[in-house]
Amino acid sequence: MAKFTFVDDINKLLSDDKWLILQERYDKKLNQRYETNFTLANGYMGLRGSFEEGSDDECPGNFIAGIFDKSEAQVRELVNVQNWVGIKVYVNGKNLNLDKCEILDFIRILDMKHGILFRGITLKDDSGMITRIEGYRFLSKHNVHRAAIKLFITPVNYNGAIAVESIIDGSVLNSKENPAYKTKHLRIVENTNFVNGGCYLETATRDDDTRIGTGFYVKVYRSDDGNNIVKHKRFAPLGEISSEYYEFDVTENKTVEVDKFVSTYTSRDISKEKIKSEVEKDVYNFASEGIDKELLKHIEIYEKLWNVADIKIEGDDEADKALRFNIFHLMSSVSESDYRVSIAAKALHGEGYKGHVFWDTEIFMLPFFIYVYPKAAKTLLMYRYNLLDAARQNAIRNGYKGAQYPWESADTGNEETPQWGVDYKGNPVRIWTGDIEYHITADIAFAVFEYYRATDDIDFMLKYGIEMILETARFWVSRCEYNSSLDRYEINDVIGPDEFHEHVNNNSYTNFLARWNIQKAIEFVEFLKKEYPSTYEMLTSKICLTEDELKNWGDIIPKIYIPFDKEKKILEQFEGYFKRKDYVIDKFDENNMPIWPDGVDITKLNDTQLVKQADVVMLMLLLGEEFDYETKKINYEYYQKRTMHKSSLGPSMYAIMGLKVGDYKNAYYSFLRSANVDLVDNQGNTKEGLHAASAGGTWQVAVFGFGGLYVDKEGALNINPWLPEKWRKLSYQIYWKGNLLQINIVKDNVDVKILESNGKKIKVKIKGKDVEVN
Amino acid sequence: MAKFTFVDDINKLLSDDKWLILQERYDKKLNQRYETNFTLANGYMGLRGSFEEGSDDECPGNFIAGIFDKSEAQVRELVNVQNWVGIKVYVNGKNLNLDKCEILDFIRILDMKHGILFRGITLKDDSGMITRIEGYRFLSKHNVHRAAIKLFITPVNYNGAIAVESIIDGSVLNSKENPAYKTKHLRIVENTNFVNGGCYLETATRDDDTRIGTGFYVKVYRSDDGNNIVKHKRFAPLGEISSEYYEFDVTENKTVEVDKFVSTYTSRDISKEKIKSEVEKDVYNFASEGIDKELLKHIEIYEKLWNVADIKIEGDDEADKALRFNIFHLMSSVSESDYRVSIAAKALHGEGYKGHVFWDTEIFMLPFFIYVYPKAAKTLLMYRYNLLDAARQNAIRNGYKGAQYPWESADTGNEETPQWGVDYKGNPVRIWTGDIEYHITADIAFAVFEYYRATDDIDFMLKYGIEMILETARFWVSRCEYNSSLDRYEINDVIGPDEFHEHVNNNSYTNFLARWNIQKAIEFVEFLKKEYPSTYEMLTSKICLTEDELKNWGDIIPKIYIPFDKEKKILEQFEGYFKRKDYVIDKFDENNMPIWPDGVDITKLNDTQLVKQADVVMLMLLLGEEFDYETKKINYEYYQKRTMHKSSLGPSMYAIMGLKVGDYKNAYYSFLRSANVDLVDNQGNTKEGLHAASAGGTWQVAVFGFGGLYVDKEGALNINPWLPEKWRKLSYQIYWKGNLLQINIVKDNVDVKILESNGKKIKVKIKGKDVEVN
Repeated sequence: MAKFTFVDDINKLLSDDKWLILQERYDKKLNQRYETNFTLANGYMGLRGSFEEGSDDECPGNFIAGIFDKSEAQVRELVNVQNWVGIKVYVNGKNLNLDKCEILDFIRILDMKHGILFRGITLKDDSGMITRIEGYRFLSKHNVHRAAIKLFITPVNYNGAIAVESIIDGSVLNSKENPAYKTKHLRIVENTNFVNGGCYLETATRDDDTRIGTGFYVKVYRSDDGNNIVKHKRFAPLGEISSEYYEFDVTENKTVEVDKFVSTYTSRDISKEKIKSEVEKDVYNFASEGIDKELLKHIEIYEKLWNVADIKIEGDDEADKALRFNIFHLMSSVSESDYRVSIAAKALHGEGYKGHVFWDTEIFMLPFFIYVYPKAAKTLLMYRYNLLDAARQNAIRNGYKGAQYPWESADTGNEETPQWGVDYKGNPVRIWTGDIEYHITADIAFAVFEYYRATDDIDFMLKYGIEMILETARFWVSRCEYNSSLDRYEINDVIGPDEFHEHVNNNSYTNFLARWNIQKAIEFVEFLKKEYPSTYEMLTSKICLTEDELKNWGDIIPKIYIPFDKEKKILEQFEGYFKRKDYVIDKFDENNMPIWPDGVDITKLNDTQLVKQADVVMLMLLLGEEFDYETKKINYEYYQKRTMHKSSLGPSMYAIMGLKVGDYKNAYYSFLRSANVDLVDNQGNTKEGLHAASAGGTWQVAVFGFGGLYVDKEGALNINPWLPEKWRKLSYQIYWKGNLLQINIVKDNVDVKILESNGKKIKVKIKGKDVEVN
Repeated sequence: MAKFTFVDDINKLLSDDKWLILQERYDKKLNQRYETNFTLANGYMGLRGSFEEGSDDECPGNFIAGIFDKSEAQVRELVNVQNWVGIKVYVNGKNLNLDKCEILDFIRILDMKHGILFRGITLKDDSGMITRIEGYRFLSKHNVHRAAIKLFITPVNYNGAIAVESIIDGSVLNSKENPAYKTKHLRIVENTNFVNGGCYLETATRDDDTRIGTGFYVKVYRSDDGNNIVKHKRFAPLGEISSEYYEFDVTENKTVEVDKFVSTYTSRDISKEKIKSEVEKDVYNFASEGIDKELLKHIEIYEKLWNVADIKIEGDDEADKALRFNIFHLMSSVSESDYRVSIAAKALHGEGYKGHVFWDTEIFMLPFFIYVYPKAAKTLLMYRYNLLDAARQNAIRNGYKGAQYPWESADTGNEETPQWGVDYKGNPVRIWTGDIEYHITADIAFAVFEYYRATDDIDFMLKYGIEMILETARFWVSRCEYNSSLDRYEINDVIGPDEFHEHVNNNSYTNFLARWNIQKAIEFVEFLKKEYPSTYEMLTSKICLTEDELKNWGDIIPKIYIPFDKEKKILEQFEGYFKRKDYVIDKFDENNMPIWPDGVDITKLNDTQLVKQADVVMLMLLLGEEFDYETKKINYEYYQKRTMHKSSLGPSMYAIMGLKVGDYKNAYYSFLRSANVDLVDNQGNTKEGLHAASAGGTWQVAVFGFGGLYVDKEGALNINPWLPEKWRKLSYQIYWKGNLLQINIVKDNVDVKILESNGKKIKVKIKGKDVEVN
């Protein structure tokens, strides 16, 4: 690892390798992958890890949670807003460019412990001048509007003139590399400088005039005395780019420091009129405090988060660090207090899936937050509650009742799934998920219950959660179709989690969860009646729920059809699935990934039993208590052989179920695959953003899989772990009903410690035995 | 030369090599040089020769004569306006990029005869797909608002989907590579599409709100049937970029044609409100006529111009073609009818010298126009006449009388010389030329007279020319300082043509021309009194010129001091020049260019006798009839040894004088150097724009030097040629007092033919002998 020459305090931050993700070689082909992996986010905003000086083939991104716009795009998408990362360095008038200079040494380090991205690069230009540029950046978790970049510039072998240009780039587009879709979402409102120096760029989304104000102030001084050395400064409003330029003289081997203080406010935060003055005030306050003060507060928050979130795997450094990488990005991507935003499928890390929120959040990511960061978990659910009215509108629009959540959700809660995409061969195909992938509505109800079960947050349930469960149940009742000839209720023409099969009838996953949803609703109504009669009255009156309607729900439940082969004990993925052409996967590539069986026509997957990702298995994970061991095992084995894993959501789920049914080897491989999905880019699309669901799934494998955590039918916490041979120890922390527990697993031994207690005694079942922990 | 596969008619255009400038290899380091050399201009606008698809290290430029703006720049500069050249090609979704694909073959051809830039490139992308892109572009000389690009795209080895994106790029900056100066001159007024397709981008200069509207329409069709093949089309207003995108299917080896029809109007042409509708109308008319119709009219005009302008040098292909290259760009850069614009030092070919007009135009370029394209010559002088009032204001501002022309002139006629620049070492230096390089004012008066002498355009003189001569004379009178102790008039604290020496007194060139200017003014007053008494009355009354003032002028003339060493017969460049340190140049580099003599401190050139460019020699060329052969020879030899040729303006002038005094060998080298200045980039700065003065100087060497043309004291046309050994024949055409003459020189034999006659007999002196030509 290249040594940083800057202050010792900072080198200390970098002392523990297991917290560090390194890039030790520059390869422009990997720029976009590293941009995703080195994204910093603080829940309010996310900045892709592009270089301050820019580079070839880059795709910079700066996203603010909740800022969406459509303009000429297909649907509303998370806007790539003006980017403040740019700091260009000129040596004797010539731009130091990574792709044109000789790179004498290179390192970038993501310090996950503190949420800081470090860099150290030594460049030799074509006249032989050698310049070292080190530094770091962070997006403050303490004051989420703030971010800073610090560069240490050292002229290694010359005296001369260096100039630095600091910019805010408002010329950004979404989908900039795709001319068929590239879209400008912003117009420039103001491009100016502050009275005492520094730039301000304000933009507005074109559809809604949502304002985004970004400002910076730059200090340049010599490390040894801290005095300003800029002798010439120039502001230039370059159209969509705001630029300030600084000239100074440098002495061989004397380091110069460049501090860029950035602040961002939007009209989602404060009124339009106040944005500029707020940004200006914040930038100047920040600059006068200096970087360190904010950085220390930022670090403090990360340390607190890690105290709960960190999982240690002793004996397997690769898995240990990869898991930490997933947790880091998940944890960084959430806003703990903004009820108007959730976490997108690609988090704040890229434009993939347009910044939309899918079931990924509730089913794959939320468990991490429920058990590790419950305040954030509540926020994520509040995002859905806030959009409950929109979901009611969706239901009405589609001819149903209650609340139908959109398959892809942005800021308004309207369905944002594009109607058209391209297939593997580049031909346009109609995308049906937004029309008929209904299960999202049950997934959200499920998530509400999962949150409640783990937190006992009755306040949330009374105010928000039960209403969501009732309204989603009501949707399912209206969605069920009565088949009088068979005297059963069906849910036809749907897409289940396995998207290879469209327009299927009675998808088990969907029907089972729909039934569960209606059942839960009835249970909660009973519960309210009994325990909270005034809430019962208020709520049923608010949503116009009558006893008659409730009785109807109860009548429907037993008649909802679930296709199940009783003999073989196999849930049929959907009605008629077993009659499709049966291909069994028997070949795997060098990454242990399935290869298409011989003879499959990949344009006609609908006709086969091949599955894109866990569907029935997914159901058996979510509602594990509903299925016995044998059923799980049989179904796992049946579907495992038919699942192509064409979604990054799959491997983690198969890993957990594998561990439950004894398929340990596959589980470990799947875990690593899932943990490494972005680190080694094994799906090939890391550049588009973080695989956030996979990150959540990875955590689930660690805790629910190897860590053996589950909640049984009685609502008791069970720990039933299994560790791979080389894992000496696995330890993790979870919140359980207000207590913070630490679980230490060494081989077969499970030790549960209470780190914070809510005062009540806690019972835990370890490998089926009740244990009281203190 | 690579063969073009497109239609035969076009291959015919390319049949004569002497009209073609070829680039046969792509080298991104040379992109900016070729952008200048492959600039197309039609006097109204100029487009640098960058690639439609863009390339690394490019510096595109699109300039409209007369569109200036200051904003944050040092001074008003020619605005790099929105650029319409962009056409990106995508093969199966991937951008075809010159710098990322393998280039299987490459050619670009500037067809000087027809003013067309051809291209033919075959690219292989990283998936092995080979695509050939051929085509051409032109800026119409017929309708100067129109331009077109035609591309022929052939999928060489695949069937597939190709997409094309056509843009107008309004994100352009001036000085984009220099962060200390880069400036945005435009704001976007409108970015939209036309009702029936095509884009429209309107910008405005930030200072004056001068509007520039650019529109295009694109057709895509298969060569074999001409039918539209676009199956999907999308307009996107990308902030400062207007983009339209077209998708279509292609078949192996079937060529597809892309026609881009462009039109540009500005508020200099029509009222703001009408720009958009005018552009739209013009674009649609153009598109419905097709490219060929406009192209043929364009070619017709070039052919007419070449009928007069072309010079043939038989026996020396290099010189023949290089000279033609200079003439081509000069001829292309002038507007024959817009009295508000002149030709900048870098023409319409680059941002160098900020699009300003210097003495380069009147002294170096104008002779070409006077003799070859007199209508344009008049236009160039009318630019100065239009700014006569501004020159009067300049004089008043500086405490003088009459009209003082600015050293650097843009659109307003105010002095636009930046006050600060950087020296050879990058340190800031005060630029004094705008303050004290006065000779421009006499240069313009000289040019007026030169035009009149060759054209007999008395109408111009009565309306404009004499007024300019009188007002400039008046400036000189007010600028002269009476030295009572020596009873002489001095012009102190000036810079002469040699800019190594600043703040000198009594520069011979300046004083001599000032005296000539005053003398000419008096002569014209006498002439008017006698021949045009009513004009005399009107004019003297208009400019308040009294007999008393005139008498004073007459008194001053004989007392204007010219430092002259009568013994040695050497004009001293300025008073005290001979006392400066005398270094004599005795070493030359491989290009025959002077090397700094040993011991010279290049930061103190003021203290030496080293000269940047012709100064005394320049004077002896302009006013050749005032000096005898011996004086010319002695002065040539003296200054030749001390001239470092740090200006591209020098070699041509030394070549002409060399030919007059018998230094033939140097003359030929200097001629080639001058002719090749941009073709081989021997000054190293071709990328900044055309060396337009050198281009004019090159023509002058051919006609005034080798061609031996000069006007003697009596105003008679003399031809006294000298041809290099290998030149079998030199022939050129000139207008002389309304007649078009062809001069054919074969060895010692001179033949003069009248191609067009004004009816009067013409006398010409060939080698001193009167000859009557018919």
